Amino acid sequence: MVVPASWQERTESYFKNLQDRISRAIEELDGNRFREDLWTREGGGGGRTRILEEGKVFEKAGVNFSSVNGNLPEEFAAKIPLGTGTWFFATGMSLVFHPRNPMIPAVHANFRYLEKGDAAWFGGGTDLTPCYPYAEDAAHFHRVLRQACDRHDPSRYPRFKKWCDEYFTLKHRGEMRGIGGVFFDYLEGDREENFAFVCDIGNSFLEAYLPIAKRRMNEPFGEHERQYQLYRRGRYVEFNLLYDRGTIFGLETRGRTESILMSLPPLVRWLYDFKPQPGSREEKALEFYQPREWA
Amino acid sequence: MVVPASWQERTESYFKNLQDRISRAIEELDGNRFREDLWTREGGGGGRTRILEEGKVFEKAGVNFSSVNGNLPEEFAAKIPLGTGTWFFATGMSLVFHPRNPMIPAVHANFRYLEKGDAAWFGGGTDLTPCYPYAEDAAHFHRVLRQACDRHDPSRYPRFKKWCDEYFTLKHRGEMRGIGGVFFDYLEGDREENFAFVCDIGNSFLEAYLPIAKRRMNEPFGEHERQYQLYRRGRYVEFNLLYDRGTIFGLETRGRTESILMSLPPLVRWLYDFKPQPGSREEKALEFYQPREWA
Repeated sequence: MVVPASWQERTESYFKNLQDRISRAIEELDGNRFREDLWTREGGGGGRTRILEEGKVFEKAGVNFSSVNGNLPEEFAAKIPLGTGTWFFATGMSLVFHPRNPMIPAVHANFRYLEKGDAAWFGGGTDLTPCYPYAEDAAHFHRVLRQACDRHDPSRYPRFKKWCDEYFTLKHRGEMRGIGGVFFDYLEGDREENFAFVCDIGNSFLEAYLPIAKRRMNEPFGEHERQYQLYRRGRYVEFNLLYDRGTIFGLETRGRTESILMSLPPLVRWLYDFKPQPGSREEKALEFYQPREWA
Repeated sequence: MVVPASWQERTESYFKNLQDRISRAIEELDGNRFREDLWTREGGGGGRTRILEEGKVFEKAGVNFSSVNGNLPEEFAAKIPLGTGTWFFATGMSLVFHPRNPMIPAVHANFRYLEKGDAAWFGGGTDLTPCYPYAEDAAHFHRVLRQACDRHDPSRYPRFKKWCDEYFTLKHRGEMRGIGGVFFDYLEGDREENFAFVCDIGNSFLEAYLPIAKRRMNEPFGEHERQYQLYRRGRYVEFNLLYDRGTIFGLETRGRTESILMSLPPLVRWLYDFKPQPGSREEKALEFYQPREWA
């Protein structure tokens, strides 16, 4: 007799496998290996953090798996719109890549399965953060995501694309962190179908991102472009520490700080009131940080 | 007949004067001039931002005056423990200095006067953030502050020193941002006496900080110390974006983003899971980031 795997086991197993596939592909492209740290969480659960620093293509790349459970602080539990009480289970895979070449966009992806009291749901998404604007890269990234969404329900891409545009907006600056992608949360209902959807988006990540990294990794750049990259990375930090749900959830649930903050860029510059030269590529990039139809 | 100045006028005038005195002293030490930006806020009020970037002593120094008023977002107003309704007036002076030499500590100070509905109060403080530990610097800074507090009420220094230690703690790391100083908020009651106290702390700032900057500005340092400085600055960013009341108040009240975020360091590095060498000065510094009696 075969005992069917529980949802906790099935999702954990998928997220681990996705972490493996993505880290292998990144190691192949970069030529350097991830450092792996296994950790356990005092309140319950643990994770598998993989970081590559000072690589050839990636100045910093992190791919994390975690599965944690226990009780949420009451005040924090009350803010979550689904599920009774404070008991929770959360498993997911998250990645952030900060490339060396400013012509390669940074990228983030996160896929997660949560249970809280009587509720269970999926959340996640992936979004692209270029410093320099290449419309064809933005269109490719969105096209792959649209195709993955459309295989399930054609209403999903427009809905989750818009959600992403809104979610990744720096309200204090009136601009997006990058050019978006898809974002969704509190995906309840048909759990089998929702899981299939999350797997489809997860499995599309490498197809969405790798061709862009490959075609930009040998673009020439100089000190001017490097400095602009460090400056734009400031927006990444501002978003992650001021707004990002995953970061706040991680810190509130006393996750492993070094694994949560692996998302922060390796080197960052803040300049007071920087304004790009009129007509420059940097000024042109600002147009990309407003919502637009890409696919 | 002389009409006595209102509290709004008296506090504004003091904070502007303090900004002038401090910026003059910093220009004298650095040899470079502040850039000044005057700005107005859509909802009411405005400010005078002064920034010095890439100076000789200071890689970035900001000294801001602002006076803003209007209506707070309702949800945010409800979180403030004093005063009825949403109408507010807030004026203050705030500064953050990020020195070039890693042996000079970074420093922050902020003094403010607030009115909200039927309440009026003062808040503020100053705290020191060294990368490298010099016990005599920490003791000097705290001694000057203790003397200023003791001129008013000997219970104030211990109370506001402890408040500072707690306030400037990075909860997700279990360490303080630096070696503290004094911090106070919601100072109600005898407004005349509280104003005199705030002026006394404000007037002590240069005496507390300048001698430290002067005796460390010619200390030798190399690439190793520079890199450690960039790494420690990451903690400054984490604190300001995750916890700092002034930053959150500024962004929530739609203040001028570039003036609020002038506090962020010019160049910052995040390293994954960095641990200082056993026995190194960097490891010794970690002891400084736990509360201690300095004066």
